[in-house]
Amino acid sequence: MDFSFSPKVEELIKKLNHFMEEYIYPNEKVYEEQLIQQENRWSAVPPIIEELKEKAKEQGLWNLFLPDSEYGAGLTNLEYAPLCEIMGRSLIAPEVFNCNAPDTGNMEVLVRYGSEQQKKEWLIPLLNGEIRSCFAMTEPDVASSDATNIEASIVRDGDEYVINGRKWWSSGAGDPRCKIAIVMGKTTPNANRYEQQSMILVPLYTPGVKIERMLPVFGYDHAPHGHGEITFENVRVPAENIIWGEGKGFAIAQGRLGPGRIHHCMRLIGAAERALEIMCKRVLNRVAFGRTLAEQGVVRDWIATSRIEIEQARLLTLKAAYMMDTVGNKEAKTEIAMIKVVAPNIALNVIDRAIQALGAAGVSDDFPLAAMWANSRTLRIADGPDEVHKRQIAKLELKKYQ
Amino acid sequence: MDFSFSPKVEELIKKLNHFMEEYIYPNEKVYEEQLIQQENRWSAVPPIIEELKEKAKEQGLWNLFLPDSEYGAGLTNLEYAPLCEIMGRSLIAPEVFNCNAPDTGNMEVLVRYGSEQQKKEWLIPLLNGEIRSCFAMTEPDVASSDATNIEASIVRDGDEYVINGRKWWSSGAGDPRCKIAIVMGKTTPNANRYEQQSMILVPLYTPGVKIERMLPVFGYDHAPHGHGEITFENVRVPAENIIWGEGKGFAIAQGRLGPGRIHHCMRLIGAAERALEIMCKRVLNRVAFGRTLAEQGVVRDWIATSRIEIEQARLLTLKAAYMMDTVGNKEAKTEIAMIKVVAPNIALNVIDRAIQALGAAGVSDDFPLAAMWANSRTLRIADGPDEVHKRQIAKLELKKYQ
Amino acid sequence: MDFSFSPKVEELIKKLNHFMEEYIYPNEKVYEEQLIQQENRWSAVPPIIEELKEKAKEQGLWNLFLPDSEYGAGLTNLEYAPLCEIMGRSLIAPEVFNCNAPDTGNMEVLVRYGSEQQKKEWLIPLLNGEIRSCFAMTEPDVASSDATNIEASIVRDGDEYVINGRKWWSSGAGDPRCKIAIVMGKTTPNANRYEQQSMILVPLYTPGVKIERMLPVFGYDHAPHGHGEITFENVRVPAENIIWGEGKGFAIAQGRLGPGRIHHCMRLIGAAERALEIMCKRVLNRVAFGRTLAEQGVVRDWIATSRIEIEQARLLTLKAAYMMDTVGNKEAKTEIAMIKVVAPNIALNVIDRAIQALGAAGVSDDFPLAAMWANSRTLRIADGPDEVHKRQIAKLELKKYQ
Amino acid sequence: MDFSFSPKVEELIKKLNHFMEEYIYPNEKVYEEQLIQQENRWSAVPPIIEELKEKAKEQGLWNLFLPDSEYGAGLTNLEYAPLCEIMGRSLIAPEVFNCNAPDTGNMEVLVRYGSEQQKKEWLIPLLNGEIRSCFAMTEPDVASSDATNIEASIVRDGDEYVINGRKWWSSGAGDPRCKIAIVMGKTTPNANRYEQQSMILVPLYTPGVKIERMLPVFGYDHAPHGHGEITFENVRVPAENIIWGEGKGFAIAQGRLGPGRIHHCMRLIGAAERALEIMCKRVLNRVAFGRTLAEQGVVRDWIATSRIEIEQARLLTLKAAYMMDTVGNKEAKTEIAMIKVVAPNIALNVIDRAIQALGAAGVSDDFPLAAMWANSRTLRIADGPDEVHKRQIAKLELKKYQ
Repeated sequence: MDFSFSPKVEELIKKLNHFMEEYIYPNEKVYEEQLIQQENRWSAVPPIIEELKEKAKEQGLWNLFLPDSEYGAGLTNLEYAPLCEIMGRSLIAPEVFNCNAPDTGNMEVLVRYGSEQQKKEWLIPLLNGEIRSCFAMTEPDVASSDATNIEASIVRDGDEYVINGRKWWSSGAGDPRCKIAIVMGKTTPNANRYEQQSMILVPLYTPGVKIERMLPVFGYDHAPHGHGEITFENVRVPAENIIWGEGKGFAIAQGRLGPGRIHHCMRLIGAAERALEIMCKRVLNRVAFGRTLAEQGVVRDWIATSRIEIEQARLLTLKAAYMMDTVGNKEAKTEIAMIKVVAPNIALNVIDRAIQALGAAGVSDDFPLAAMWANSRTLRIADGPDEVHKRQIAKLELKKYQ
Repeated sequence: MDFSFSPKVEELIKKLNHFMEEYIYPNEKVYEEQLIQQENRWSAVPPIIEELKEKAKEQGLWNLFLPDSEYGAGLTNLEYAPLCEIMGRSLIAPEVFNCNAPDTGNMEVLVRYGSEQQKKEWLIPLLNGEIRSCFAMTEPDVASSDATNIEASIVRDGDEYVINGRKWWSSGAGDPRCKIAIVMGKTTPNANRYEQQSMILVPLYTPGVKIERMLPVFGYDHAPHGHGEITFENVRVPAENIIWGEGKGFAIAQGRLGPGRIHHCMRLIGAAERALEIMCKRVLNRVAFGRTLAEQGVVRDWIATSRIEIEQARLLTLKAAYMMDTVGNKEAKTEIAMIKVVAPNIALNVIDRAIQALGAAGVSDDFPLAAMWANSRTLRIADGPDEVHKRQIAKLELKKYQ
Repeated sequence: MDFSFSPKVEELIKKLNHFMEEYIYPNEKVYEEQLIQQENRWSAVPPIIEELKEKAKEQGLWNLFLPDSEYGAGLTNLEYAPLCEIMGRSLIAPEVFNCNAPDTGNMEVLVRYGSEQQKKEWLIPLLNGEIRSCFAMTEPDVASSDATNIEASIVRDGDEYVINGRKWWSSGAGDPRCKIAIVMGKTTPNANRYEQQSMILVPLYTPGVKIERMLPVFGYDHAPHGHGEITFENVRVPAENIIWGEGKGFAIAQGRLGPGRIHHCMRLIGAAERALEIMCKRVLNRVAFGRTLAEQGVVRDWIATSRIEIEQARLLTLKAAYMMDTVGNKEAKTEIAMIKVVAPNIALNVIDRAIQALGAAGVSDDFPLAAMWANSRTLRIADGPDEVHKRQIAKLELKKYQ
Repeated sequence: MDFSFSPKVEELIKKLNHFMEEYIYPNEKVYEEQLIQQENRWSAVPPIIEELKEKAKEQGLWNLFLPDSEYGAGLTNLEYAPLCEIMGRSLIAPEVFNCNAPDTGNMEVLVRYGSEQQKKEWLIPLLNGEIRSCFAMTEPDVASSDATNIEASIVRDGDEYVINGRKWWSSGAGDPRCKIAIVMGKTTPNANRYEQQSMILVPLYTPGVKIERMLPVFGYDHAPHGHGEITFENVRVPAENIIWGEGKGFAIAQGRLGPGRIHHCMRLIGAAERALEIMCKRVLNRVAFGRTLAEQGVVRDWIATSRIEIEQARLLTLKAAYMMDTVGNKEAKTEIAMIKVVAPNIALNVIDRAIQALGAAGVSDDFPLAAMWANSRTLRIADGPDEVHKRQIAKLELKKYQ
């Protein structure tokens, strides 16, 4: 198990850190201000984003997430880990490098399972950052943590599929550039549990697709990307829009979720690092009861505990990434499940301590803490709640003795 | 220590519960919709509020918080506890009964320490629910958890006081009906630490008062009330606006904060109860992995732990209330400090479990959980962060052996 | 809900506290020394115990646990709570007042369900402190947390019952004065689940009863009382030794366990109080890194958290006791279950913090902390593990919405 | 950062695991029985130990801890980590491989800082497992977590040093084979804080050395090794017994404690692994409420959480070991401090869950859980309490921003 970084990666880390200092952190407030000054929060993407994307592309900081070397940077998961962590330090950063969820996961699906036609039509513009995409799996009417509960129907009718269903938490659906959804639903309700589901490409402008509303997260609308509730009413798409084939939904989901999950974890560690940095800087400069907060024992305890949690989570992320690279996502499933539980929880812990150390400022938007907290909180639920992952970990542990 | 409720209180509990069922819960969504349909979120208070206030007044469910029997309902803290808890079940409820922070605390200050003129001018309209008020103590530039850090100046100049300073987290300042602020600042910088501060009444329309911005809480703007950052620049008010006298700021703050803190705690217990109820109802009806969530051991563990935490917090609240009634706020300071630490933390625990049990729905605004969480989170900071209260509790404990 | 103490109870509190100061604390070391100087640790009870019992009897501090006024002190559970808590401050105290488990539970069974003959033969000497008893329910071969698993057999044969089975954790069985066991086993395997079990009185000198060994608890042997593993091989006792009747085992267990559980909780709160006191005294007098430990923020946080946990647990204990007194053990089952979970856990927390504050001294026997910790740890298991109680609490909570 | 194991290490892992299965686990009970059958628990070391030592030596599983290749196995810390972890699975194992504390630390001190004469006289017999040693640093009268508090005096008098002081928690001092103590004390009270202390070799048979008593740990006496309280009264040793030189005590302590601490951590991870294994095996075979414990959600949650905690702690241990090997103990101080906090705490968590899952059996000595718990608990205190390490971690973290 070798976690060393090659000179190539060290170089990328350096460039990326420099880019963050130069272009990302100073523009976080610019982004928010542009958003407020728009016609409305959903009408456009703040122009700073496209400006920064150009710069990132120029510097070769583009599509780093994609291990495939034909389409992407060709980095392994382990190589990508420190880079993705850095991007996770700012909520506006990942998109600037075309490394944001859910587009990365969707691109990965198309690279692995897409037909040539699908790649040409959707993958290329996504890789170029010209369009955005969403992923429509979760449903309001069932506990979607158990994916066999998914009830949307995808029915073959001649050369077309007809899609009906209600989805929510399709992140990115609000983005005016979002053109395509990958929809999961049942094509084959009579097959065995793991072969009933399929994935299909549905352009958002197809008749019958309706974004009912955008869902907030702890008061944040996450505009202009947002989280959509979408109804599909007799939506017809060409049969060739199916991805890989009928009944492959589960298999694709497994392939998609491994990298998607670990990318979230890498970013969460970056968020936690930034929160710790904010906390340290602040407590060195605030005085209460005759001493700086940094000199108070409880605050020092928070800092130490935070450093300990981050270090351990990072090592586990690296191990999971290393295993995905060497023995494959399937063999790495315990490690992926473990880090998917750990990373959001430690990020929440660290951010929460930072909030407490900052006092009232911490819950406001003067610092990125509250927004990072809300974002991290969703990741104890999204891509499988903690409990489902723990269930899986325990099952694999017990199997050793059965 | 007798926590029994008199028939009068039992009757009020019954009426209040009925009112909640009839008028509050069904109108939570109405409130939000009216807010959205306004010119903007700050332009007005949704009309449903004034309608409900009328109904509450008619039913005698009005000013229940005020122990003083001349101006208020004349209930003891212990008697008010179960009523306030019920109100805490809905974020829109307290105002309907004229029992919302920070107005209750401000009214209490005026009842106790206000001059006849101050009472006539500000207390009466507040008691009638005609105007709203805010409390300007916390400052962005210092760790206000240590109140001796407060730096705003209040300087006598002839028949006037001149106020300069920057305050934030003045809750309610955004409300179009908010007319008056109680401002804390230094009149007597050379006095001993606890006699430097004074409180003064400042009408919000006084020249030099400027609401710079409204601060969000985890993405929530809490419009139309909100949390204001306010600058005071050479603001002049008549000398008789001082409350009680120069140097009394600390003493008033102590008097004000006792009841204010415990009211928060009562409401938090109500919030926790509602979250537990929402969780129980939901898990009985969602199926994952072949069983309802209610049948899953981990969910059952959450429910039991939540019930245990709520019961203990409620008992401690009642004890603190009882002591305030019988031996006074000062003697009850350990108990007030303890419950001020316990209540927000257990509410956050219970609400967080409920969110997790609901999955994605939990972080949205389809349920009141996320909003209640954000609100509860501020209360680990507002009116003294946990750490300051714990510091105090430890000090009193150690004193027993010194 | 009235938790006030009558003058009678206040007087007993005063007397008991005085007795503790005068006779118990100074003799804790004496007890240990006498034990070490015996022939072996199981050969006798240190003589100081009988001396102190005489004194306690003289002062009327005897059998305070027993609500029945014919045989005992006639105190309610609520009245007994503060007294039992005080006794819980020392591991040697309860027996001195004839208020130690498992004898109290056994005496209560005999008062409630015993025949006149059984009372005369066993209850009276127990009440007099002349003999000791044990309770043989838990079995090594099954998960006894589910009492329907109990497999010992009690078979009628003419005028006798024949008992076969293996029991362990029969506390007190090592005591040379222990003469009688209450044994639980199946008389009626074909009855419904809750009517299969019976309880029967088995003198320990009956042929076929064999104490196989004494079980340690975290290295403590708890000599001379100890925890026995006992085999019953064709043990014959007269048919009249059955308590109440065949199939009543469950019903008796329920009746027995309510008071038994809450007594444990009362004592645990006393143990926690003593640990907090030891911690406070010590940290005021130890210096590290230039300040006393009492001045270190983390230590202060421990003290505050401990005080908060104790206060809440005590209030919940009082509530459970009050409900047992007013609406009965059955109606109070949620409260009993809650406090049975809370008390051992908070005691462990408080004691563990005290140990950490004392450093190496804390894990030794120079202070009672380590022994109290081990004792408290067993109470997360004994009389139902936490998880069984939580299961029950959740079930009752969910029932409200079904 | 490369955590891969060389073929040599893989081979040692295999041999060691085989040795554990063949000779260690089956002899744990033998050890205890031999101990009980001795004249007394302190009179001798159970003969099985010397038998097993011979076997281990034959198989080359000897002195694996010692990185020095002249005297020891010449393994790096990283190479030793998986081996030491395996030894940590049994409390009797480390000594069998001559890898037990405190002898390993003492041998390391002698290898690094000892004179040729000191090596010949004490190191060689220790390496051969012929004698045992103890380390006398902690004192009962001061908070020894702050090493500047140490007050024993070591005064030069001609060709001798005269030692006076009281030490406790000198582990191993009860062992009849224990011949030598390394004593820390002040030679130079007027030097700067970090150069006042020295270490000196004191044969236990020197006049004036008196083992006052052996200290228990949660009821365990840890005989025959034990933890001694030792007085030194005008103890005279030749001047050449000083190690390295006057005033070097701190520097040696730093050098000694790094490896000593991480060895403890490695063993703790082994202990946690064994506890998890015991829990898994047991819960698969116990039935309660109609299902095996392994099928109960809460138990599954414990297993998953335990696996997660162990994985993270192991990775952090490997990182700390790797850094000690590559950048040195001094540069690795944050990592050593972190793992010294993490390992005992997660071991305690995992073992405690296993105890709870086993019920009453868990607190007895039928399983090694209770003994492992007590042992792990001391390691939150020994070699620096958690709080001192956290203090250090926070200081280093804050330094980044100062």
